[in-house]
Amino acid sequence: MSQPLRVPVSVFGAAGFTGALTARLLHGHPSFELQAVTARSDVGARLDELYPHHRVPLTLEELDLDRHGNVEAAIVAYPHGAAAPLVAELRSRGVRIVDLSADFRLRDATVYEHWYDEHQAPELLEEAVYGLPECYRDQIRDADLVANPGCYPTATLLALAPLARTGLIEDVVIDAKSGVSGAGRAATDKTHFVTVDENVSAYGVPRHRHTPEIEQELQQLGAEVRVTFTPHLLPLDQGELVSCYVRLAGDGLDLEQLYGDAYAGEPFVELASAPPGVRDVRDTNICRLSVHRDERTGRVIVFGAIDNLWKGAASQAVQNLNLMFGRPEAEGIA
Amino acid sequence: MSQPLRVPVSVFGAAGFTGALTARLLHGHPSFELQAVTARSDVGARLDELYPHHRVPLTLEELDLDRHGNVEAAIVAYPHGAAAPLVAELRSRGVRIVDLSADFRLRDATVYEHWYDEHQAPELLEEAVYGLPECYRDQIRDADLVANPGCYPTATLLALAPLARTGLIEDVVIDAKSGVSGAGRAATDKTHFVTVDENVSAYGVPRHRHTPEIEQELQQLGAEVRVTFTPHLLPLDQGELVSCYVRLAGDGLDLEQLYGDAYAGEPFVELASAPPGVRDVRDTNICRLSVHRDERTGRVIVFGAIDNLWKGAASQAVQNLNLMFGRPEAEGIA
Amino acid sequence: MSQPLRVPVSVFGAAGFTGALTARLLHGHPSFELQAVTARSDVGARLDELYPHHRVPLTLEELDLDRHGNVEAAIVAYPHGAAAPLVAELRSRGVRIVDLSADFRLRDATVYEHWYDEHQAPELLEEAVYGLPECYRDQIRDADLVANPGCYPTATLLALAPLARTGLIEDVVIDAKSGVSGAGRAATDKTHFVTVDENVSAYGVPRHRHTPEIEQELQQLGAEVRVTFTPHLLPLDQGELVSCYVRLAGDGLDLEQLYGDAYAGEPFVELASAPPGVRDVRDTNICRLSVHRDERTGRVIVFGAIDNLWKGAASQAVQNLNLMFGRPEAEGIA
Amino acid sequence: MSQPLRVPVSVFGAAGFTGALTARLLHGHPSFELQAVTARSDVGARLDELYPHHRVPLTLEELDLDRHGNVEAAIVAYPHGAAAPLVAELRSRGVRIVDLSADFRLRDATVYEHWYDEHQAPELLEEAVYGLPECYRDQIRDADLVANPGCYPTATLLALAPLARTGLIEDVVIDAKSGVSGAGRAATDKTHFVTVDENVSAYGVPRHRHTPEIEQELQQLGAEVRVTFTPHLLPLDQGELVSCYVRLAGDGLDLEQLYGDAYAGEPFVELASAPPGVRDVRDTNICRLSVHRDERTGRVIVFGAIDNLWKGAASQAVQNLNLMFGRPEAEGIA
Repeated sequence: MSQPLRVPVSVFGAAGFTGALTARLLHGHPSFELQAVTARSDVGARLDELYPHHRVPLTLEELDLDRHGNVEAAIVAYPHGAAAPLVAELRSRGVRIVDLSADFRLRDATVYEHWYDEHQAPELLEEAVYGLPECYRDQIRDADLVANPGCYPTATLLALAPLARTGLIEDVVIDAKSGVSGAGRAATDKTHFVTVDENVSAYGVPRHRHTPEIEQELQQLGAEVRVTFTPHLLPLDQGELVSCYVRLAGDGLDLEQLYGDAYAGEPFVELASAPPGVRDVRDTNICRLSVHRDERTGRVIVFGAIDNLWKGAASQAVQNLNLMFGRPEAEGIA
Repeated sequence: MSQPLRVPVSVFGAAGFTGALTARLLHGHPSFELQAVTARSDVGARLDELYPHHRVPLTLEELDLDRHGNVEAAIVAYPHGAAAPLVAELRSRGVRIVDLSADFRLRDATVYEHWYDEHQAPELLEEAVYGLPECYRDQIRDADLVANPGCYPTATLLALAPLARTGLIEDVVIDAKSGVSGAGRAATDKTHFVTVDENVSAYGVPRHRHTPEIEQELQQLGAEVRVTFTPHLLPLDQGELVSCYVRLAGDGLDLEQLYGDAYAGEPFVELASAPPGVRDVRDTNICRLSVHRDERTGRVIVFGAIDNLWKGAASQAVQNLNLMFGRPEAEGIA
Repeated sequence: MSQPLRVPVSVFGAAGFTGALTARLLHGHPSFELQAVTARSDVGARLDELYPHHRVPLTLEELDLDRHGNVEAAIVAYPHGAAAPLVAELRSRGVRIVDLSADFRLRDATVYEHWYDEHQAPELLEEAVYGLPECYRDQIRDADLVANPGCYPTATLLALAPLARTGLIEDVVIDAKSGVSGAGRAATDKTHFVTVDENVSAYGVPRHRHTPEIEQELQQLGAEVRVTFTPHLLPLDQGELVSCYVRLAGDGLDLEQLYGDAYAGEPFVELASAPPGVRDVRDTNICRLSVHRDERTGRVIVFGAIDNLWKGAASQAVQNLNLMFGRPEAEGIA
Repeated sequence: MSQPLRVPVSVFGAAGFTGALTARLLHGHPSFELQAVTARSDVGARLDELYPHHRVPLTLEELDLDRHGNVEAAIVAYPHGAAAPLVAELRSRGVRIVDLSADFRLRDATVYEHWYDEHQAPELLEEAVYGLPECYRDQIRDADLVANPGCYPTATLLALAPLARTGLIEDVVIDAKSGVSGAGRAATDKTHFVTVDENVSAYGVPRHRHTPEIEQELQQLGAEVRVTFTPHLLPLDQGELVSCYVRLAGDGLDLEQLYGDAYAGEPFVELASAPPGVRDVRDTNICRLSVHRDERTGRVIVFGAIDNLWKGAASQAVQNLNLMFGRPEAEGIA
């Protein structure tokens, strides 16, 4: 029996944390052939010098669409705003894309422009599919452009989807905690070791840009609600925890059954009885959840833990690629 | 002019983190004379061996009330339940006490028994004063028994007091984050470095014992509300942050003025425009606050940062002692 | 073509860090069938509760040699002293063993007794092979009992072997730094987060028990030298760095060529030009080395970084098992 | 009796870690009056915004020598090379200076030029006094220009001075470990949290610039020796440990008595029996030492722990200022 050909893929923007990790996952992937890694900084550097632990012996190249765009699949790991034009170019060449930026997550260009800037490729919004496999698996299979969710929305939506689908959510407070890799590779006062070490504080108060993404997707699932979403920066490198405080209309739900049914068979969602820790999911594509009822206040509390670089970005991107190209969903990331 | 005599004081339970730090603060205090440090473990060990950085050259002694109780002032740093009988003994000898346990924080013995155990000295509850100087300064001055607040209640109440006094609070979610020293000196799976490092998770869900203390004191201030209170353990040693999500009846408050007025002249409360970090208050008696309005949801968000061992325990105890004995409030802790 | 049968294996002592990790590696190994995991504590607990991130859905059982010893291969992860009797029992049943303790590392029982205690199975010392594949690959293939090296000796010997073989080593100082997982799972004052965090100090001064193991193996390689070996505890979980300061008789060596030749083709040794960091090798079986000449003093400085739980213990044990059972050396650990 | 006038002092270069801490110590000092803080970046920012925990309510100003140089005392916290011209200007105005840079530490301009660059004010080298009070207390009292020692030399020289004075040192290896604040405030790949966290590696191999400073001062004390000095970066913020491996000519020394005599009465040197940790000296001007004999190899091992920002820089600068202006040596830093 012949071995199926591997799908040629390029990673655009591989100098950053998430692009580099995606390159590592694809470099070792049995069904994809990593053709090139491009970057906007560090051109000429080898990935295994910048990130020795990834062990990807490729050199970062300056973007050359004629060469790098001659692939079937692409990962785009550019900052928001910069991603859309590149995605448009690649789509015009027929490349199927997972985009890690925020540019195609919001379905409505006006919402995008309210929270970000003018949209550079609004004509592609309609074909973009929101890349949360646990909610949109079938659409992703057929998609040519997948918008990989933000890290916070990934954890939050997996934590809240079963409740949202009941239509009973009245109010949500999301207190999120993230490791520093979520802030990216840029060396700034905010990411200096001495700033973060032995510290914790909130940021992006009160209007973090992941808010409209969370609200949009909760609405898709059945919850029409404005959320209070507040991220905090923690002294750890990888990992993200969302603590969701939910008020429901009525409290007759059997939470254990609701979540058990919702995630039965899901390869990358774990239900735990005790609150999950981010250490439980480090370097994995897994989201670990626990759900609790606070009888005194009537609230439901849901915790969701992911690795922000993996399920919150790179490995979820590969999960999406696997779906798009008919590969086993867990291939290369389990 | 003659130097006033220093007040003799003993610290009972000085082998733990908070007792040892209180001993250090009193050892260097100009108005108190640290007579003895007792312990229930490590008897015979020198404090400066157990805690070199405190540099207290005293030896931990087994409790001998006839000797150690012959003082004017005492700090009791026993676990809840064990503290009450010792406090009763010391009170019967006329010693004025700051108790760091939970035993005298709850004004109602039945509430105590619901959340803890049977109360061992309920007859003393009436005379106990809740030791949050920013709210009860005058009562503390005259008190013989001060119940030092819990670390989470300290930060939470300072964060919410100005709002609580308006009577407008309808709903509160408190998401708290604490360093590991808050879990005490006991070496357990929970405090093992490898458990905590690169990790974050909630604990005490959904019924942490600081909940009734917070609700009791919010009620005293004017807010009759059941709170959702969820603490999380972070990979840092000292520091505690509370993130308070408040829904008010009406939103016409001038938050800046409200907080500015409430804390004008307070030596140990700082108002900041940006969310505070626990690093800002490490090794201090200061609580640093910021208050924000989320226009989209109508919520008010208040952050409060303290050092759990200092303002959350030891230095607040000394602040209370200073008040009780007519000393400058900041003496020995500024 | 038929699939070769998987080799049945038990892990004895799987409640600790290294035993549990070995169980995880064997649980996912294509050539071994993990039959049972035993423990001396936590009997009845599931491994995936104690160590969620390992995801091994097996229950820790009390030792029952009739059941658990009915295997072809065994990993013994007992403390020194306790391991030898179990190893003797298993050998008498014909089981082939990788022992993670110190009991069979020292070839001379009197040396063992000088540094540890009376040896419980000295008759097995002769058949034991020191399990450092990069030095003893052929002997390991034929061995029935492999003594898995200590974590510090692993890093040190890989760092020094090329120099030792020249016979020119005159003097060695080894300054070692280890993460806290090296101290094991026991919760003590030493492993309490608050003790380790923001701290660094030496321990085991001046006679750490890995010293004779290092000297014995250096001698086997050609260096008759007494070493000064001093480990330090660092605030990190996994990772070990040895900094080796070597004085040679004569300095004409081409270090780059010496090391390049020595490790050409080695799958788990990496040579780097810059000093390695333990982050480069986290969660891998790799030892990363760099070698430098200090022209001013004539010393050669060699740095070696490993993950103490992986190459320093569990994954090296699986590497040895692979060799013993004729499997590809990197199977299940690459 | 009248209060003595406070000495007017300016801090030049107060935007960095050590300058800012010196400003804090002088801001609260009873004998100095902090006139101004200047900076080459962040001009116009308030120090208590950049460093909230220092609580210095002064604004960073651009250098204006006519205003800022009109003081009796100055702290210069500029990088090497940039410091010398400013020091020369200030000296020409008669200001007495503690310089935190390397510019006046090396007594020989040619050595400076070998390790750094051309010297900008060699004519001042002769009047500069090396500011290690435990070795040069009397000269510092009379000095107009004190070169504050480097952090590594401070710890190393205090660790080795008693041995150096015996004239018996034959060989020294110094393995040093430092927290990240030692790398300064600049946000770079090297100081990014994700680079440092869970990591340890050597840097500056094999020629760190503190080497000639250590050798020069060892020679002054009596040890003519070339040292191997290798620093490592650790995942902690403040603290520095040197592990010194010494070979002596003859081993008849009574180490305990030697060190006890050498440091009797020293207010800021502590002798411990167990290896010191940097946590023991955090936020203090103390150097904590332990000395051990390794009977097997004949080596003496000395550990020295300091806080690199305090005794390694800012508080030692204030200690020097105290001496220069006839103040109690521990004033403002105990």
